[in-house]
Amino acid sequence: MDFVKALLDKKLLLIGNFMLTSGKVSPYYLDLRKLPNHPDIFSFVVSSAVDIVKGINFDMILGVVTGGVPFASFIACKLNKPMGYIRAEKKGHGTERLLEADVDGKKVIVVDDVATTGGSILKAVEEVRKAGGKVEHALVIVDREEGAFEKLESVGIRLLSVYKVSEILNSLIKSNLVAENEKKLISDYMVKNIGKS
Amino acid sequence: MDFVKALLDKKLLLIGNFMLTSGKVSPYYLDLRKLPNHPDIFSFVVSSAVDIVKGINFDMILGVVTGGVPFASFIACKLNKPMGYIRAEKKGHGTERLLEADVDGKKVIVVDDVATTGGSILKAVEEVRKAGGKVEHALVIVDREEGAFEKLESVGIRLLSVYKVSEILNSLIKSNLVAENEKKLISDYMVKNIGKS
Repeated sequence: MDFVKALLDKKLLLIGNFMLTSGKVSPYYLDLRKLPNHPDIFSFVVSSAVDIVKGINFDMILGVVTGGVPFASFIACKLNKPMGYIRAEKKGHGTERLLEADVDGKKVIVVDDVATTGGSILKAVEEVRKAGGKVEHALVIVDREEGAFEKLESVGIRLLSVYKVSEILNSLIKSNLVAENEKKLISDYMVKNIGKS
Repeated sequence: MDFVKALLDKKLLLIGNFMLTSGKVSPYYLDLRKLPNHPDIFSFVVSSAVDIVKGINFDMILGVVTGGVPFASFIACKLNKPMGYIRAEKKGHGTERLLEADVDGKKVIVVDDVATTGGSILKAVEEVRKAGGKVEHALVIVDREEGAFEKLESVGIRLLSVYKVSEILNSLIKSNLVAENEKKLISDYMVKNIGKS
């Protein structure tokens, strides 16, 4: 499967000028929240994820709300493993639990759709550890490579990913899927922002 | 599988005196958010759900955030169907979409873990219809039978459920799993509250 072409076709990956909440302008916009709308691509991604986690000894998969929950669920469904979910932030009413899982003494993999700086995953890991769970791995579909790997490594978490965003952007640059001026913008953005945490 | 005994064993169903947000006191407390922690029970429930939806012609399964998302995901995983999710309410920041799915022209089943009065499912259905989707069915693990079926029927939705709460409570009353005085309280509660919308 040409994952990058599929993302473009389904408009999950857009090329242009996108203002990020940080104020930075990005030449690409990647939104995987609708990926499960497309079983052909999603099942391919889930199979890759299953291959990645197969070698790991773990008891439970925890999806970070909301984008990580379908991904965690599909992996758990394929492997017949316990799963649960965890909120990175409280909603309005204060009584709500962040963690919907009994993790005490369990080896847990924390799963999200994307990682950028790693903030949400870090919060999830802290919550799981507070509840007595052991976390040594996190898994995302795409690592945007803007600091998540290093941030998580510093607290003893290995961040695994089905794709690194540099792989996606490099394959765009090598392809005939985007215009030459767009390739230049993507390449400049990569030099400035990616892997520079 | 003795579903009721399994719910009690896993402490997903509690017997006692529980103050509901409505101010009512309930002799039981059912919380299915941790059900996916238990693949033995959850996969049994998912299989039943798959049997229920098999006869329906539909294009996409939409899980109501957050409790409905693992259930929708597992059904979609088993049937290799498109899935997405929908929020019944906005979080803090206003830019967030309620609906994470392209439903225009699609036949959609809305899925949640439980239905009580049907309010969340109704909001989800309205949102899907606004976006051009067709909804004729909703599916939950447990219908608490406090008005959801009738409310949804009035807008052309058939509410399907793997279990009705009256089945669960009746099997508790017939079992040796709870004390006699608790059986009496459950029975009184059923007479007053269930199916009385």
